[in-house]
Amino acid sequence: MVTTEKHPLDGLYSKRGRNISPPRVGDPSQSAAMISFIYGFPDPDSLPAASVADAAVRALESNGKWALQYGATMGAKPLVDVLLEKLKRDQGIDAKPENVMITAGGSQAVGLIIDLFVDWDDMVLMEAPTWMGFIWGLKNVGAKMQAIPMEPDGMDLTALRSTLEELRADGVTPKMIYIIPNFQNPTGISMSLAKRKELIEIAHEFGTIIFEDDAYHDLRFSGEKIPSIYSLDPYGLTIYTATFSKTMGAGMRLGWLVAPKEVIQHLGVLKIDGGTNVFGSYVAAEWIPENLPEHLTTLREIYHRRKVLMIDALGKHMPEGTTWTDPDGGFFVWVTLPEGLDTLELLPRAREMGIEYMPGGSCYPDGGGENQLRLSYSFASDEQIEPGIEILATLVKGELMESASK
Amino acid sequence: MVTTEKHPLDGLYSKRGRNISPPRVGDPSQSAAMISFIYGFPDPDSLPAASVADAAVRALESNGKWALQYGATMGAKPLVDVLLEKLKRDQGIDAKPENVMITAGGSQAVGLIIDLFVDWDDMVLMEAPTWMGFIWGLKNVGAKMQAIPMEPDGMDLTALRSTLEELRADGVTPKMIYIIPNFQNPTGISMSLAKRKELIEIAHEFGTIIFEDDAYHDLRFSGEKIPSIYSLDPYGLTIYTATFSKTMGAGMRLGWLVAPKEVIQHLGVLKIDGGTNVFGSYVAAEWIPENLPEHLTTLREIYHRRKVLMIDALGKHMPEGTTWTDPDGGFFVWVTLPEGLDTLELLPRAREMGIEYMPGGSCYPDGGGENQLRLSYSFASDEQIEPGIEILATLVKGELMESASK
Repeated sequence: MVTTEKHPLDGLYSKRGRNISPPRVGDPSQSAAMISFIYGFPDPDSLPAASVADAAVRALESNGKWALQYGATMGAKPLVDVLLEKLKRDQGIDAKPENVMITAGGSQAVGLIIDLFVDWDDMVLMEAPTWMGFIWGLKNVGAKMQAIPMEPDGMDLTALRSTLEELRADGVTPKMIYIIPNFQNPTGISMSLAKRKELIEIAHEFGTIIFEDDAYHDLRFSGEKIPSIYSLDPYGLTIYTATFSKTMGAGMRLGWLVAPKEVIQHLGVLKIDGGTNVFGSYVAAEWIPENLPEHLTTLREIYHRRKVLMIDALGKHMPEGTTWTDPDGGFFVWVTLPEGLDTLELLPRAREMGIEYMPGGSCYPDGGGENQLRLSYSFASDEQIEPGIEILATLVKGELMESASK
Repeated sequence: MVTTEKHPLDGLYSKRGRNISPPRVGDPSQSAAMISFIYGFPDPDSLPAASVADAAVRALESNGKWALQYGATMGAKPLVDVLLEKLKRDQGIDAKPENVMITAGGSQAVGLIIDLFVDWDDMVLMEAPTWMGFIWGLKNVGAKMQAIPMEPDGMDLTALRSTLEELRADGVTPKMIYIIPNFQNPTGISMSLAKRKELIEIAHEFGTIIFEDDAYHDLRFSGEKIPSIYSLDPYGLTIYTATFSKTMGAGMRLGWLVAPKEVIQHLGVLKIDGGTNVFGSYVAAEWIPENLPEHLTTLREIYHRRKVLMIDALGKHMPEGTTWTDPDGGFFVWVTLPEGLDTLELLPRAREMGIEYMPGGSCYPDGGGENQLRLSYSFASDEQIEPGIEILATLVKGELMESASK
C-alpha cells in the first residue's frame, strides 16, 4: 500500500505521480503458498529451464560480445530475424524488419503505445471486461475509458458503433480500441472472423486505431485458428502485440510489436532503453528455432487438460445460477455468480480457505463485475484444480445460504 | 530517420508522439567497423561471457521456476539482496529493501523518474554539458531545460543559485537538478565533496530534488572516493541511480534506483512491466557475489590504461589551442577545439577517415559545444587509441589550415 504520510517531495510530483493509486501487482512466489487461480502466470513445472540454460551457454559462446553489450533500440537482430520467421509461420503475418520492435514483454509494448497515442483525458475504448494491466496503464496517464460489452463471439459491435456515434456527436475521437482477440483475458472468449472484419471497417469509418493484443495466440488447444485483425486490415490501422511470456517463459520479459513503419519509427524515439533485454534476446534467438514448436505442443496439452479439469469441476461443484465460459485456448475461465454476491468482498475468506482468484471488478475500468471472477488454470497443478474449485463452491454456497437467511 | 510521409494515424498521436524528433540511437555492431570513440559502450573483449554462462546454468538449475516466471515489480529478491550488500560495501549507502528498485539499466530508472516528476513544460536543471540520453528523455516529455556550466570541480553553484533565484522570481520551481557526480558523462569531471554538500543545501533551500546518476561509480581508477550525494543528504531530497551496464555488461540491462520509500512506492504503480529482466536478474544475483569485485579490478586496469593512452596521444598529436579533461575514472575525455571549428560538421569526414566521436552539441540541451567533442576510451582497443587520435589530429589540423587560408 502507498503510505499516506507526507513527504517533502510531494509538491514536485507530475500529474502522473499525483494520480497514483495503490499498487495491485502480484509476486508469483507469494501465490505459491495456496491453490492460486488469480494470476496469468505460466505453469511453473513446464518452464524450460534446462534448454534455456543450454541456449544461454551457446549464445554466450558464439555471441558473448554482443549479448552483453548495449543493443539496437528496435531489438537485437538475431531475435528480430527469428521473430519474423515465427510471425510468418504461426501468425500468418508477413512483416518486414521495419515493422517490428522487440519489447520487454507485452507490458513495454502497451506502455509505449499508450505514450505514443494517449494524452491526459483522451478516450480509449476496450472490451468489458478486459485485462487489468491495460486499465492500470491508462489510469496512470489520466485516460478516460469506455468499455464495450462482450458477447460469446467477441465485442458487441452494435454497442461499439453507438458509443462511437455518441462520442462523435461530442466531438471525441477515441485514440484506440483495445482488443484481445484470442481467448480474451479475462473471459476466454475469441472474436469471430466476421466481427474482426466488421471491427476494421468501424475503426476505418470512425478514424481510430485497433490495438490488437494477441498474448495467447500460440496457446490454442481446440477450434480453428482465426486470422489476426492485423493481417485482415487493409487500412494500416492495426497495431499488433504479442509475447514470449506465456510460451518460452515470462521471466524472459520478451514481447514485440508489429505496426506500420511510421509507428515503429516514432516508438524508436520514445523508447530510450539501450536495447530491450539484450542478453535475454540472444538467448531467446538461440532457443526459439529449436525448441519453441515442440514446447508449444507440450503447453497446449497441459493447458487443455487443465481447462477440462476446471470446466468439469465447475460443473460438478458450483451451485445453480453460476455460469462460466469454455475457452479454446489461453489461461482463463470467466465465472459469473448469482447476482448479489461480491467476489472482492469474498476474496479474503477464499484466501483463508486456501484459494485465490481475480475479482471481476478489477477487469472493468468503470464499475461492474462485482459478482464475477476470473479463474486462471495456468499456474495451479492438475491435482489442485478440482480441490480448489470445491473450496470455491463451498464458499459460494455458504454465502448464498447466508444471504438467503438474512 | 523518421520519414515525412503522412500516415492515417498521424492525427491520433499524443503530444509526446507529435513532438518526436529524429532518433539518435547507436547500434554498437555498426561502430565496430571503425575506430569508435563515440558511445559509452563497455570494452567488448572484457565482457565476462564465460562466467555469465556458468552463472546462467547455476541460476536456472537452482531457481529455474522463478527465473523464467513473472517477477516482483520492485525487483527479483535475490538481486535486491545482492544489491543491498553491494551498496553498503561499495557505495557506502545503507539502504533497506523498500528504498530500492531494480530497473532495466539506468535508462528505465531515468524514464520512471521523469514520468513521476516532469509534466509538459516543467523545468529541469542539469550540468552543461550532460548525458544526451537524459536530454532526449526530457525532450520526449516536453520539458524545459536549463543547463548550468561546469567547472573543474563540478557544476558552477554560483550560477546554479542565480538561475534558481531568477526562476523563483518567475514563480518556477525546477522539478529536479540532474547530476552525474563521478567522471561525469561527457566531461569526465567529478564533483568535489564541498560542492556536493553545498548542492544539497541549495536544493533544500529552493525546494527541489537532486537526481544523482552514478553510472560510473565503480570505475574509479585514481583519486580518492568521494561520498555520494545520496549518503550526504540529511533531507531525503536525493534520488540515486546506478547500473551494472558498465561493469557486468550492458546487455544485462540491469540498473537500480535508491530513493525515499514513498518515491519507490509511487514508482511501483507507474512501473507496469511484470518485473524487470527477471531471467537476467537471477543470473546477475548468481554472478555478482563471486565475480564482480575481481572483475572491477580488471576493468579499472583496462580503462586506466586506455585513458593514459588517450591523454598521451592527445598531448602528442593535437594542435595548440586544443584542451581536454583528465578523468579519474569512467569512460570519457572531453575535448575543446579552437573556436570556430564545428565538430558536428566534421563528423562525416572523420568517419570517412575511419574514426568517430560524439559531437559536443549533442550534450547541451540549449545550444553550445559546437567546437567540443566527447571521446570514449571504453570501446576502442588499446592498439586503436593512438592511431585514432592521430586521425582526429590530422582532421583538426587540416581544418585549421583551411580556415586560416580563407
